[in-house]
Amino acid sequence: MDRSGVITLLTDFGLSDVYVGVLKGVIWGICPQARIVDLTHNVRPQDVLQGGFLLASCYRHFPRGTVHLAVVDPGVGTDRPAIAMETPYGWFVAPDNGLLIWVWEGLSRSERAASRIVELGQSRYWLPQVSRTFHGRDIFAPVAAHLAAGVSLEELGRPLRQLTLQGDVQPRVQDDGTVLGHVLHVDRFGNCSTNIEGDDVKEMAAEGSLCVDLPGHRLEGLHSTYAQVQPGQPLALIGSNGRLEIAVRNGSAAAQLGLAVGDPVRVWMRRT
Amino acid sequence: MDRSGVITLLTDFGLSDVYVGVLKGVIWGICPQARIVDLTHNVRPQDVLQGGFLLASCYRHFPRGTVHLAVVDPGVGTDRPAIAMETPYGWFVAPDNGLLIWVWEGLSRSERAASRIVELGQSRYWLPQVSRTFHGRDIFAPVAAHLAAGVSLEELGRPLRQLTLQGDVQPRVQDDGTVLGHVLHVDRFGNCSTNIEGDDVKEMAAEGSLCVDLPGHRLEGLHSTYAQVQPGQPLALIGSNGRLEIAVRNGSAAAQLGLAVGDPVRVWMRRT
Amino acid sequence: MDRSGVITLLTDFGLSDVYVGVLKGVIWGICPQARIVDLTHNVRPQDVLQGGFLLASCYRHFPRGTVHLAVVDPGVGTDRPAIAMETPYGWFVAPDNGLLIWVWEGLSRSERAASRIVELGQSRYWLPQVSRTFHGRDIFAPVAAHLAAGVSLEELGRPLRQLTLQGDVQPRVQDDGTVLGHVLHVDRFGNCSTNIEGDDVKEMAAEGSLCVDLPGHRLEGLHSTYAQVQPGQPLALIGSNGRLEIAVRNGSAAAQLGLAVGDPVRVWMRRT
Repeated sequence: MDRSGVITLLTDFGLSDVYVGVLKGVIWGICPQARIVDLTHNVRPQDVLQGGFLLASCYRHFPRGTVHLAVVDPGVGTDRPAIAMETPYGWFVAPDNGLLIWVWEGLSRSERAASRIVELGQSRYWLPQVSRTFHGRDIFAPVAAHLAAGVSLEELGRPLRQLTLQGDVQPRVQDDGTVLGHVLHVDRFGNCSTNIEGDDVKEMAAEGSLCVDLPGHRLEGLHSTYAQVQPGQPLALIGSNGRLEIAVRNGSAAAQLGLAVGDPVRVWMRRT
Repeated sequence: MDRSGVITLLTDFGLSDVYVGVLKGVIWGICPQARIVDLTHNVRPQDVLQGGFLLASCYRHFPRGTVHLAVVDPGVGTDRPAIAMETPYGWFVAPDNGLLIWVWEGLSRSERAASRIVELGQSRYWLPQVSRTFHGRDIFAPVAAHLAAGVSLEELGRPLRQLTLQGDVQPRVQDDGTVLGHVLHVDRFGNCSTNIEGDDVKEMAAEGSLCVDLPGHRLEGLHSTYAQVQPGQPLALIGSNGRLEIAVRNGSAAAQLGLAVGDPVRVWMRRT
Repeated sequence: MDRSGVITLLTDFGLSDVYVGVLKGVIWGICPQARIVDLTHNVRPQDVLQGGFLLASCYRHFPRGTVHLAVVDPGVGTDRPAIAMETPYGWFVAPDNGLLIWVWEGLSRSERAASRIVELGQSRYWLPQVSRTFHGRDIFAPVAAHLAAGVSLEELGRPLRQLTLQGDVQPRVQDDGTVLGHVLHVDRFGNCSTNIEGDDVKEMAAEGSLCVDLPGHRLEGLHSTYAQVQPGQPLALIGSNGRLEIAVRNGSAAAQLGLAVGDPVRVWMRRT
């Protein structure tokens, strides 16, 4: 796979410190031609699951051969492995703490077969001095830069058969077809993304009348855009990331419906 | 007009989601050599007027031939047009919802005559799949990237005679010369920008003693820099964007004077 | 010294205004090939000391020959000098208001001897029109861009023997070896950086049992990583910036211990 020359960054470092800038300095010291882009640095501190979900929701919009560097790393300084993963879409460099679960879950069977994982062990691709508190700077950023500069996955460390941490991140499906998921992310507008795949919901909606139960609220039907309801009205639709989303037209679903990350979302079909 | 290779981004997406990163991924997929710069992504959600004002206050500091991509789009999914505008300074790509009013109002008569607008209609310059909730990603970003890569305005869609929405954004001038404007933007320091042109105020100040009336406060005189008053004192001056600004030296005018966006500002002259 | 082509930006402008974007537009108008990176723009408004500390904590992670542009400038419009400083690591462009004290203090004797300072006086390297309220745009950014494009330090203005403002930023050492410092920065995770050099603390810890006194709390011992204590427990360690840091594993030291910028930190040794 050719390198795109792009490196994306996703962390929980925030933008009030200089940590993100330091990552970029390190990267450009190794790969001066890299074009670096911030996905977000406002992942909730140490929230591995949110970070992984956001990464999975956007990496396919980047050119093939992009290197995605993700650091949400509450276990820095422990023996949690550091990994790099090659997929048909590009490379991922991250702690092996569940941060890449969403990316992995989103790959098809054949894409998984074509993917490989290594545990970062070759310190010649790290900074000369490695701290015990900032592996983003000392290990992950240098490895991402070397990958973007042409180093192959195999050179970075020994192969791993799979991600160490496997997650239970998918919604549950009951015998009667009811889907039990939850709110995964609330965006700036108050739109609430769930872990429920849009394709699954569309199938249900095609067969009958869809109901979406939230704590204290029930939404009827599946819409295709905000403008199909009146301003201020709530609706369920397939969001731009392909997942079931709860929104309020020109308003905030989180505020108006009292929704927050982790809240249960139950989707079922009233047969007509 | 030669392309500068620069694309600016201004949105209300915030920095806690990955939407801005996605725009950049899409742009680099089409125009890998583009240099992308964030103007701001913290426009208040769906505040078209604020976004347009901020864009107008800064685009002239970029090289000619820059493409300015602006997305504050509460009407996404409705039939509001999407447009691109060519001016002697560069290109603007945005929903036709008033977001470009401030840019248009700031052009001279001859600059307007040299400008052209098209409605984005040629879907070959969009992403293959267009959602109904994220035209920033699916339409605006690809079009901006194609413009930066050399596609001409005419190829993007049919000509429009003018912006669909015209705004009433200028201050009113009364018969006695009093100017009635309002606070348009409060910056991080608490400085309050108004919609009143600095040149107009300077003319008035040259003829007599200038008075600026705010709710509950009256400022006397026009200053040229913060240091002309004591720390903690309020003043009126021409801000770095060329407009009348209310400030407090080493303090926050918004907090100290209780000013907020929308508050009326009345400028008049006490003849001496 | 060869130019790296990188320009870093550190300001207190925040990200809700377009001021940072304007700096980049001005830079690219002069030096189109510059690669620009944000260190942070969330320095507390007009907090020169915090800004300088953050800059000093990260500039060495950038390639040699990088230009560092720092603007925290409460004295804009007064006669405080504007300067550029050349060091063996790269160039610094800033107001001469103490913002570069931390960088200067961190240089060795020989590095200081190899460094030079000029007062920015040659207006041909500025924008044609200079406002009295936004020298970041009109003076500092153009000068940084010219430096990155190859202009030499000497061309920018007359030499200065030293920084005008000298700071008292180092911790005090008492006769019994006790070190009296304070909290300089609280990061997003609540980790509290101090002005106490890690090397000094390590020497003390090698000789006996280290005690770190904070208002209302005493920490015992010096750790090398968060994982050496239980989740939720506080610890003292050498942070990734080389200074004594107070942290809580998987938690916020600032919140849990009630620490804030300016709080005293007393380090002493219980001889064993």
